[in-house]
Formats: sequence, C-alpha cells, structure tokens
Amino acid sequence: MSNPTAAMLVIGDEILSGRTRDSNTHHLAGELTGRGIRLAEARVVPDVHDRIVAAVNDLRAAYDHVFTSGGIGPTHDDITADAIAAAFGVPIDVRADARAILEAHYQRTGLELNAARLRMARIPDGAALIDNPVSSAPGFTLGNVHVMAGVPAIFQSMVASVLPMLTGGAPLLSQMIDVDRGEGEIAGPLGDMAARFPELSFGSYPYIRNGAHGTQLVVRGTDAARLDEAMVALSRLVSGQG
Amino acid sequence: MSNPTAAMLVIGDEILSGRTRDSNTHHLAGELTGRGIRLAEARVVPDVHDRIVAAVNDLRAAYDHVFTSGGIGPTHDDITADAIAAAFGVPIDVRADARAILEAHYQRTGLELNAARLRMARIPDGAALIDNPVSSAPGFTLGNVHVMAGVPAIFQSMVASVLPMLTGGAPLLSQMIDVDRGEGEIAGPLGDMAARFPELSFGSYPYIRNGAHGTQLVVRGTDAARLDEAMVALSRLVSGQG
Repeated sequence: MSNPTAAMLVIGDEILSGRTRDSNTHHLAGELTGRGIRLAEARVVPDVHDRIVAAVNDLRAAYDHVFTSGGIGPTHDDITADAIAAAFGVPIDVRADARAILEAHYQRTGLELNAARLRMARIPDGAALIDNPVSSAPGFTLGNVHVMAGVPAIFQSMVASVLPMLTGGAPLLSQMIDVDRGEGEIAGPLGDMAARFPELSFGSYPYIRNGAHGTQLVVRGTDAARLDEAMVALSRLVSGQG
Repeated sequence: MSNPTAAMLVIGDEILSGRTRDSNTHHLAGELTGRGIRLAEARVVPDVHDRIVAAVNDLRAAYDHVFTSGGIGPTHDDITADAIAAAFGVPIDVRADARAILEAHYQRTGLELNAARLRMARIPDGAALIDNPVSSAPGFTLGNVHVMAGVPAIFQSMVASVLPMLTGGAPLLSQMIDVDRGEGEIAGPLGDMAARFPELSFGSYPYIRNGAHGTQLVVRGTDAARLDEAMVALSRLVSGQG
C-alpha cells in the first residue's frame, strides 16, 4: 500500500505499571485509518530519557509520522520535550510564544505561573506549536514527530489540531460480515480468498453470541470496486454457493 | 531496581487499524507488577512475518521475559508460531502432544479437526506447551518468549498458567494520596521528594472531580519502610507542614 505510515509512542511509567490503561493508541488508530494513514507500529516506553530518545529515533526513521503521548506536564518526570530535543540534537528552552500562551491562561484562571508550570513552555528549537484548547499548555511538532499530552481529552484535542495538516492517502476502507460458524470452519476458504485478492487484507475475529460460536470477517483495502467484488465472493462462499 | 524485566508484544492488524482495543497489555501489566516483574516496554506490530521476527529478537535480547499476544489461531494470517520459530532459527511442525490435545477437544465437541484447525498444533522445536483451559489450542514457551492467544479470556488464562513458573522479584509496592491542588502547584515539592528518595518513583496524575482540579500522587518502590517514610513526608508536605 502506498498510504503514508505512522507510529504511536506512548510515554509513561503509569501505563507499564498497570495503573493507567492507555486509550490514546486506540483513538489515534481510528482517526488515522479514517484519513488513509496506516498506523504501522505502537510502543510504550517508561519515563526514562535514553529510552524515549532511542524509540523516537527508531520510529521517526522508519515511518512518515510519529505521534507521542505523555510526559509534557509540569512535574519532574515530564521529560518528553527534552528527550525529543535530544533525539533531534537541537537546543530547548522556554520559548516566548509558548510562555505567552501560559501567561494568558494563568492570568485568566488566577493561578500562579510558577517554575514548574513554566516548564510546559520548554519547546525545542524549530518546533511548531500544537494548539491545546482544553488546558492551554501546547504540544509541538518537530520534523515528523508530533508531541502531545497523555490526558485523553487533551490528546484527542491535539490530534484534532494536527490531523488536518497532514497529507493522507486513499481512505482505508473496510467491510464486514458475520458468519455463524467457528473460525476453524471458515479458515480454509478465507485463506483461498486472501490469495485471490492479494491487494486486500482479510481478518477473522471469533466471537460467542448467545452461546453460539461465530466469526466476524473483515476485509480491508483502498480499492472500493475490488472490495465489493471480494464481499460478493465471500457472501457466496459462506452461504455455501461459492 | 533488580527486579526481573519483561516486554509485551501485541501482534495483530486489528489493533493498529482501530477495530479492536488491546486489553491484554493492561492485564499483563497488573499481573506482573503484583509478582515483582517490571514491564519495561510494550509494542504492537502488524501480522507481517519480518516485523514479528524483528520485534521478538529485539525484545528477547533486551528483557528477561517476552509475552506475545495474538496470531496463533487457525487462519491464514495467524503466523505468529512460524515467526517465533524463525526468530529462534528452529524448525516448526505439527507436534504430537499438541495434536493430541486438539483431537481430544474436537472429539468432545463433535467438530472436525480440519487442516486449518490442525495449524494450531504447529509448535517450534524445543518449546513447552502452555495450557489453554478455555478453548484447548495451546500456547507455548520457547526460551524466554511466552506465546499466547489474543482473545482476552484465553490470554488471561494462559498468563495464569505461565506466571507461577517464573521467578519474580521483591513485590513492587505503591501507595497513593489525593491532593486537592493542581499538578502545577505540587510539582516543585514533588520533585524535591523524588530527589530525596532516589530509590522510589513518584508519579502525579491530574484529575477533575466535581469541577475541582486535584492530583493523585503515587509513590512506587520495593522498600516498604522507605515507602512509608516517603508517604509521611509527602502527607506533611501537602498539608503545608512539610
């Protein structure tokens, strides 16, 4: 497929310890698929400088876009911005435009822009800010890396700010059909279909509904006509007329 | 920390396309933490042979244990077992012990053990089977890699079979305290605490409850006495007596 590719990098001890369940990857996956960008990998790493730097450099070399989530708040373990700067080998400091956004926000809310909060205005040289309509402190894009907050509502609002800027590909289409047979019954014919339509991908997902085994078959691709053709063939096949 | 380390490798297009939300990583994270094994990384890769092989070899070299989820069913895109064999450079074929388990299961259920289902008895040479009380088809352990099904109920039952075999570490303990102040207020003092107790990890998680900002502070470590000491200091600090 010639669709652009992307990777997700989730940063945070709290995901790996089991305290917090990551929901940002699933949200991003759906949004990207809708725009014809293929999420090709996801990783979770802890709040450790060298681990973040290594993962960012791995992923930005391998994919068209990298989205990160987490580690850009005000506390001592929010080290993502510095790690991104290190990965790109560029300086980082409090930047006037980001500082102005925070000053306006804290003036409005009557809270103090203290040293900890001012850390959220640390932006690597050359980065473009990502708007944060939820809580003001901006994310940023540097090269092909989009750095966003971990709090789901903020992450989602930042994704909404970033995605319209990106060039997508042909929409990744999917169609599905439920079959009241187990996955093992349908696996042989499904493999034949996959060989016959090599440009499509065929997935099968077993389920139990009201005590009976069934399988959801999902066909994905970018060519709508071939997808329709495959679904007709698949319907014949599962109804025993194939 | 001298606790054993682990990585999770989730295998499946359906996670990356956004069709399915991965819940296995979160389950494993909690189970490992309870046994003193530190989940140090998680990855999601698609159903692509070379990508699975590369990820398995990266992770098994870097961590004490690797847990995989997905791709061991009967269909054409269930290629995990073959990829694991390739990663270790060992042969793979239908194995008598695994075949016997499937034969007994399908005899019991009155279904046919067809060619597709028989693929689930393909086990790399030298692997030990992992019991599957839910649907019989076994997982397996090869070297430090534990290969399990993606369906959450089956994954969880396989984790329950594997974990008692592993040597854990000192339990990873955690204590928490809710503070009715924003993360930015508490960030400075919390950083000082982290510097004072370098063997513990301090996390802060902002929340909004009944319209008011608050922060949950979580302290983690293996030394119960130091953890208690830190919590006393933290309580004084957040009540303004620190």
